[in-house]
Amino acid sequence: MIRATENNIELTSPTMIPKASGYLWNDEMMIHVNCRGYAVAQFMQPEPAKYSYAPNLEAKTFMQPEQPYYAHHPGRFIYIKDQDNGEMFSAPYEPMRVLPEKYTFSVGKHNINWKVEHKDILIEMTLSLPKKEAMELWRVKVTNRSEKKRNISIYPSFTIGYMSWMNQSGEYHEDLQGIICSSITPYQKYQDYDKIKNLKDKTYLLADRKPVAWEVNQGEFEGEGGITNPSALQQDKLSKGESRYEMPIGVLQYNLELNPGAEEEYRFVFGPAKTDENVARIREEYFIQDGFEQAEIEYANYIAEGKGSIQIKTPDAELDNFVNHWLPRQVYYHGITNRLSTDPQTRNYLQDNMGMIYIKPEIARGAFLMALSQQKASGAMPDGIILHKDAELKYINQVPHTDHCVWLPICLSAYLDETNDYGILDEIVPFSGVKEEATVFEHINRAMHWLINDRDERGLNYINQGDWNDPMNMVGYKGKGVSGWLTTASAYAFMIWADICETVNQAETGKEFKQEADKSNEIINKYLWDGNWYARGITDDNVVFGISKDKEGRIFLNSQGWALLSGAANKEKKEKLLKAVTEQLESPYGVEMLAPAYTKMRVDVGRVTQKHPGSAENGSVYNHAAIFYIYALYTAGEEDNAYRLLRKMIPGPDLEDIKQRGQLPVFIPNYYRGSYRQIPRTAGRSSHLFNTGTVSWVYRTLIDGLFGLQGTKEGLRIKPQLPSHWEEASIQRSFRGVELTIDIKREDNVDSIEVYLNGEYVEDGVIKDLKSDSEYNIKVKIPLAK
Amino acid sequence: MIRATENNIELTSPTMIPKASGYLWNDEMMIHVNCRGYAVAQFMQPEPAKYSYAPNLEAKTFMQPEQPYYAHHPGRFIYIKDQDNGEMFSAPYEPMRVLPEKYTFSVGKHNINWKVEHKDILIEMTLSLPKKEAMELWRVKVTNRSEKKRNISIYPSFTIGYMSWMNQSGEYHEDLQGIICSSITPYQKYQDYDKIKNLKDKTYLLADRKPVAWEVNQGEFEGEGGITNPSALQQDKLSKGESRYEMPIGVLQYNLELNPGAEEEYRFVFGPAKTDENVARIREEYFIQDGFEQAEIEYANYIAEGKGSIQIKTPDAELDNFVNHWLPRQVYYHGITNRLSTDPQTRNYLQDNMGMIYIKPEIARGAFLMALSQQKASGAMPDGIILHKDAELKYINQVPHTDHCVWLPICLSAYLDETNDYGILDEIVPFSGVKEEATVFEHINRAMHWLINDRDERGLNYINQGDWNDPMNMVGYKGKGVSGWLTTASAYAFMIWADICETVNQAETGKEFKQEADKSNEIINKYLWDGNWYARGITDDNVVFGISKDKEGRIFLNSQGWALLSGAANKEKKEKLLKAVTEQLESPYGVEMLAPAYTKMRVDVGRVTQKHPGSAENGSVYNHAAIFYIYALYTAGEEDNAYRLLRKMIPGPDLEDIKQRGQLPVFIPNYYRGSYRQIPRTAGRSSHLFNTGTVSWVYRTLIDGLFGLQGTKEGLRIKPQLPSHWEEASIQRSFRGVELTIDIKREDNVDSIEVYLNGEYVEDGVIKDLKSDSEYNIKVKIPLAK
Repeated sequence: MIRATENNIELTSPTMIPKASGYLWNDEMMIHVNCRGYAVAQFMQPEPAKYSYAPNLEAKTFMQPEQPYYAHHPGRFIYIKDQDNGEMFSAPYEPMRVLPEKYTFSVGKHNINWKVEHKDILIEMTLSLPKKEAMELWRVKVTNRSEKKRNISIYPSFTIGYMSWMNQSGEYHEDLQGIICSSITPYQKYQDYDKIKNLKDKTYLLADRKPVAWEVNQGEFEGEGGITNPSALQQDKLSKGESRYEMPIGVLQYNLELNPGAEEEYRFVFGPAKTDENVARIREEYFIQDGFEQAEIEYANYIAEGKGSIQIKTPDAELDNFVNHWLPRQVYYHGITNRLSTDPQTRNYLQDNMGMIYIKPEIARGAFLMALSQQKASGAMPDGIILHKDAELKYINQVPHTDHCVWLPICLSAYLDETNDYGILDEIVPFSGVKEEATVFEHINRAMHWLINDRDERGLNYINQGDWNDPMNMVGYKGKGVSGWLTTASAYAFMIWADICETVNQAETGKEFKQEADKSNEIINKYLWDGNWYARGITDDNVVFGISKDKEGRIFLNSQGWALLSGAANKEKKEKLLKAVTEQLESPYGVEMLAPAYTKMRVDVGRVTQKHPGSAENGSVYNHAAIFYIYALYTAGEEDNAYRLLRKMIPGPDLEDIKQRGQLPVFIPNYYRGSYRQIPRTAGRSSHLFNTGTVSWVYRTLIDGLFGLQGTKEGLRIKPQLPSHWEEASIQRSFRGVELTIDIKREDNVDSIEVYLNGEYVEDGVIKDLKSDSEYNIKVKIPLAK
Repeated sequence: MIRATENNIELTSPTMIPKASGYLWNDEMMIHVNCRGYAVAQFMQPEPAKYSYAPNLEAKTFMQPEQPYYAHHPGRFIYIKDQDNGEMFSAPYEPMRVLPEKYTFSVGKHNINWKVEHKDILIEMTLSLPKKEAMELWRVKVTNRSEKKRNISIYPSFTIGYMSWMNQSGEYHEDLQGIICSSITPYQKYQDYDKIKNLKDKTYLLADRKPVAWEVNQGEFEGEGGITNPSALQQDKLSKGESRYEMPIGVLQYNLELNPGAEEEYRFVFGPAKTDENVARIREEYFIQDGFEQAEIEYANYIAEGKGSIQIKTPDAELDNFVNHWLPRQVYYHGITNRLSTDPQTRNYLQDNMGMIYIKPEIARGAFLMALSQQKASGAMPDGIILHKDAELKYINQVPHTDHCVWLPICLSAYLDETNDYGILDEIVPFSGVKEEATVFEHINRAMHWLINDRDERGLNYINQGDWNDPMNMVGYKGKGVSGWLTTASAYAFMIWADICETVNQAETGKEFKQEADKSNEIINKYLWDGNWYARGITDDNVVFGISKDKEGRIFLNSQGWALLSGAANKEKKEKLLKAVTEQLESPYGVEMLAPAYTKMRVDVGRVTQKHPGSAENGSVYNHAAIFYIYALYTAGEEDNAYRLLRKMIPGPDLEDIKQRGQLPVFIPNYYRGSYRQIPRTAGRSSHLFNTGTVSWVYRTLIDGLFGLQGTKEGLRIKPQLPSHWEEASIQRSFRGVELTIDIKREDNVDSIEVYLNGEYVEDGVIKDLKSDSEYNIKVKIPLAK
C-alpha cells in the first residue's frame, strides 16, 4: 500500500491514511495537500494570506495541528462524467468519494501526483509550483483505457470559497480563458486601507485549453445535489454562471471524445493576483509563451538545491530513503522560508538555520548575523527576528521568553564545525536600538553574560513567561520562578562557548565560561535532582515541579537530556535518569515530552497544562524535545538507546505504524500524540505540522552522532556510533567542498574505531588537510557489537 | 407554499427558500435557525461565544450578511432509519437532503417547529428556549403514520464542531444521560487566563430518555459515508465512541417499535456550561423536576410581553399579520437584548430604545439616561454605550463618528409623545469622566451645542470618520470633510428640540434652536443643492459628492429624506428630489440607499465604496435609510409614495417576491440587495440580518405616519394618512394606559379628516383627558381618494 520509489512515496489507497499528505513551497507560498484532494495553501504579502478559502470566515491563524477536514474544505478536484451513461466520480477521491478501481497518491519532492483509474478512465493529476510566484501549476491527463470510444466530460473544480464579507464576486473572462474572482480584505479603520490596498485580493484559474462551459457560482454549481453530487453536472453544459457577492468557485468543463488508448492533457494555473492585468501577464507568460514548462523545470532545480551533505546506505532502507531525500528537503524548507513568517521566533530562526549549515551555510551565516543585529546591547535577544520592514512581533513573540541566548553558541558551534569559518566571530554587527556595534564574539559574550545575570540568588535562570517551552508561561511570570532546564541549557551553552573561545585563543574568556558551566552544573544538582531524575523548575512560589511527588507532569524529558549534555549528570545520575525516561516517557512512537500529561490547569505552571493531554507540549512525542534527548544520548555514548528513539521519529516501516501515525514518511511532524499510558487509542497520531525545530537537530544528530562525521578545526573527525544491530553503513559526505566516501563495518578483532584513509590508518580518526581535488575513500572498522 | 396562521408563518418546502429562517432569543443568547436545520447560535459571557462550532477555526465576528451555509455548517438534525429495510432520511432536510413527502417549517414567536413526513414516519421537531439560561430546548416526536408496525431508529445529531485547537474532547456520561464536550478557549498571554478561566467552555447534550447508544466522535460517526450518509448508521448500534482532541459531535441513538398510529416523544437540552456540576444541575432541574415544561411556558410569556401598542386591521392581511405579530417582536428583541452587544453603537442603542417606547417605555427611559450618563461634558456622545462592567469599545466603536448627538432629541421626542413623561427632562444625570452632573434638558442642550460647534466655517457639520453611514470613513478623516446629511439631520434635531423647549416653557432656548435650524437649512440649500437633489457631502479636498456629475454614488437617499424632515426643501425642491429618488433609487424591493453603486474604491469617500455593489451601504435597499425616507414622506404628506415603499419592506405577499428575497415575512432584514439597475439577478435578496435600526422607525412610522396616532402633550392626535387604495382601516391603540379603538373610513362628502369620539365630533382631532376607565371608540372619516 505504501512504496518508496527513487523520488517519490506512493500510497495506493485514498482511505487507509486519509490525512496522508505532501507539501510544496517556494519563496512566496506553501501548499499542503492531502491524498484526497484537500489543500491548505498560504502565500505571503508579506503576512500569510489565502486565495482558496474556507466556506466561512476563518480566523487568521497558523496551521492547525491535526488539520480538520470537512466536506467543503478547500481542495482541488476533477469531477468526471461519462456522457454515454451518466456515471460520475471525482479525482483524487473527494468530494464524491467513489472508491476508484486503481489509485495512487505519489508525493514527490518537486511535485505531487495522483493516478486515479475508474471504469477504464485514467485521471492523472500533477501539482507543481513555479520558483518565485505564488501560484499552483496543474496538469490533468485523461486517458481512455478501455477498448471502446468514450465520451467524457471533465470538470476541474478549484475551491475559492468565502473570500470576504465586504466584497466577493467572480466571472469567466473569455479573453483570458479563465476565471477571476475579486474580493476586498475586510477592515474597519481607514488607517488599515493602506495595508490592504495593495493586497492580492483576486483568485484566478487560468486554462491552457478553452473550456466548453464553466461555473463561478458555488451555489448554482452544487444545487440540491450538494458538493458530493453537484446538480450542475446533470446538465449537458454548465450554466456559465457568475458570482455577485455569492460564494465563488472555479469550475471548468471540457468535453472529450476519446478513442481507445487516447489521452488528452490540460494545464491550469491557480493563484492570487492583484489585478486583471497581472492575470493577463501570467496567461501570456505561462500559456502563450512556454513559462509553464520552464517553471516546472526551474522549480525542480530549486528543490534539488536543497541537497544535504550526506547520502547514506544503511541496513535500514526506509531510513536511507528518508535521510537522503525527505529530511534535507524539510531542513531546506525551514532554512529558506523561515516557516513563511515575517517574525520567526528567535530560537526557531537560529535552529532552522542550524539545519541550513548542512545545505547552504552562507544562508545560515547571514541569518546568524541578522539575528545578532537585533540583539540588545545588554546581551538580551528579542523574542522574534524581524525579517521584513513592515513586520512586527506578533502573537507568541509578544510574550517574553528567557531562552533565546542559549541557542547562539549552540547553533554557531555547528556552523563552525561544518565550515571552519571562524572569521564570522570577527564580523562587526550592530546592536539594536543603540549606536553601538561589536564583533560577533563580543555579541555572544554578552548573550552569555545576560544568561549569567538573569538568575536568582541561587544561581538558577529566571523563566519569566516561558523558556523553550512556550506555554509554560506561569511558572515565573511573577518574577521569581526559575527554569531548571534553562539553567542546564545555559551550562551547556557556556561549555560550548568556552570550547570555541579556547579554539580561537581566548583562553581567559573560555576559562571564565568553563567555570560558569561547572558552577551551573553544581547548582542544578543541588536544587533540581529529585532522586531519580531532574526537576523541570521551581515556581514563583518556590515549588519544585516535574518531580516524583507530582501526580501529573512528574517527569520532563528536556531536563534529563540536557543534564547529559551539560555534564551535570554523573554516571549514577545518568543511569537513573535513563531508566526513568524509558519507564515513564518512552512509547512505541517515540519519547514523550512529559508524563503523565496534565489533565487540568495547574496555575503555577501555566498554559501547557491546559492543552489536551498527549497533544503538543502537554505530553506528546514532541519531536523537537525528543531529538534533543537523542542528541544527548549520542553525546553520552548511548548509541542503542539513541538509535531506537531516533528511528521512531519516522513513520513506518510497518504499515500498522504508518496507519496509526496517519502520515507518510515524507516529513517529521512537530509531534506524534503521546500520553501512551493514558490514552493509547490516539497515541502516535501525527500533528501533520511540518514546521518544527526538530529536523535541523535530526540532521545534526546523524552527522555528529549516528555517523560521527563532525567537523573540527583540523578537519573531519570520524567517530560513528552505529546501533549494535547494524553491521555496516556507507556514507557520502560533502564537507568543506570535498566529497568523502565512508564505509563503516564491524570487524572481528577491532577494539575501538579504526579509521583508514585511502588505505592508510589515521591515528586520531581526524581527516585533515582536505583538498577538493583529492579522493577520500575512508574505511572505518568498528568493534563487533557486545 | 407559505401560509400565515394565528401565531406562525409556515413554509411547506425545504428547497424553495433555502435560507428561510426564524430566530429566538433570551437574556443570554440568540439562535437563528433555517428551514433545513442549520443554526447560528451565540451566547453572552459577556462577549458573544459559541457552543456549536464550525468545522474550522472561525473568526470571532458579528453575524455574516447572507450567511453562507455549507455541508458541515452547525445544525440540529435527526437521522431516521427504518430498521426493517435500511431506508434513511434526515429531518428537517439537511444533511441527507432526502426530499420528504410532506414538510412544514413553521416559525413561531416563541418556538420554531418542523413537521417532516416521509415513508409514513412523521418527525415533529420543536425548538424553544428558557427565559434566562443559554440553552436550547428540543422536543422530537416520532409517529408511525402507516398501517403496519415499524422498527425505527432515530439519531438526534447536534453539531459541536471544532471547539478549540488547544483542547477539545467529549464523552457520554451515563449518570447524566448525556454528552459533555470540553474545551479551552485558545489564548496565548497569561494575562488572558483570567478572562478565559470562567468561560463556559463545555457543550452538553442532555436527554430525558436513555439512549441505546451514542457517538461523540465526528470522524467515527461519518466514516467514508460522510455527513450526508454517515457510515455509523449502517451499524446496528452506534459505537459509543468518545472524542480525544478529535472533532466532537453529539449523536444519540433510540430504537423504537411503533404500532400503527403510535408515537414517542423525546426531549433534549443543548447548550454551554462551565462545569459538569452545572450540567448535573440542569439535568436535575429540567428533566428530573419539571423545569423543561415550565421553561417553555415562561419563555412564551416572556416573548408575549413584547406586544406593541397597536393592533391593526387593514385591507392588507399580510401587513396586518406582520405588524400585529412580527414587527413588535423584532422591536422588542432589539430593545431587550441591545443586539447582544456589551457596547452597542450609540445611535443603535438610542434608536433601538426608541422602538421600546411602544412596548416597555420604562426600559427606553432607563436607556436614555444610561446613554446620557456616558456623554462628555462637552456635549459629545461616545461612539458606543458600555453596558457591562467588563466591556470596552470595540471594532467600529473605535472609529470616531459625528452623528450620535442628533439621535437624542429625535428619539426623546418619540418618548415624550408616547408617555408625556416630560419629567425625564428634569432628571439629574452625570457626565462621563468628570464630577459634573446636570439635568437631561441641559445634557441635550449641550449635545445640540456640540453639533453647532462641530462645524466648518461654512456652517457644515464635520463628518470625521463617518456619520450614520459607518463605512463612509474617508470623506473627512483629514479634518475638513463635511456631511451634508448630518447638517440636515442637525437642522431636524434642532427643530425637534426647539419644539420640546417651547412645550416645556423654555421659549428662549427654543427660539435659539429654531434659528439654528433655519440657518442650517439655508446653508444646506446654499452648498448642497445640486439642481435636482441634495448632495451627500463635501470631501476633505472640497469636492462635493453625491451629485449629478458623479458616475457612481450619484444620488444618496438620506440627503433627500432628511431635507424633507428638516424643512430645507421647499415645494419645488421637494418635487424634484422625489422624482429623482423614484427614477434613480426605487426598485421592486424598496428604495435604494445610493445609486449607482460604487464598483471601485473612491478614496475620498471611503470603505463604503469597496463593499460589493448592491450590498449593505453600497446601494442596497438599506432598510434603515429607506424608513427614514418613508417617515419623511409621511411628514411631507406623501402618503401614497410612503406606503408603496413601506410595503416593499416586508417580503411578499407574492410568492415570487418572497422567493427572490429568500426570506419569510417574520422580520425586516437590514438590507435587501439593491443595484437593481446594475445587477437585477440578485436584487431583492435579503441579508437575513435581523439586527437593524429599521424596525423601531417602522413602528414609529406606522404610528406617526400611516395611522396618524401620535401622542401630544394634551393627548392623542388622530391624523391618518392611508394610501389612496385603502378604503378603511381599524386600529386598537394602547396609549398611556388607555385602550382606544379607531375605525378609519373613507366617506363621501368629507373634505378633511373628521374625528368622532364615542360619536362626538372632536374639533382639533386630538383625544384629550385620557382616562383608563373610559371607553374610546373613535370613528375617523377621511375624504375619498382623488
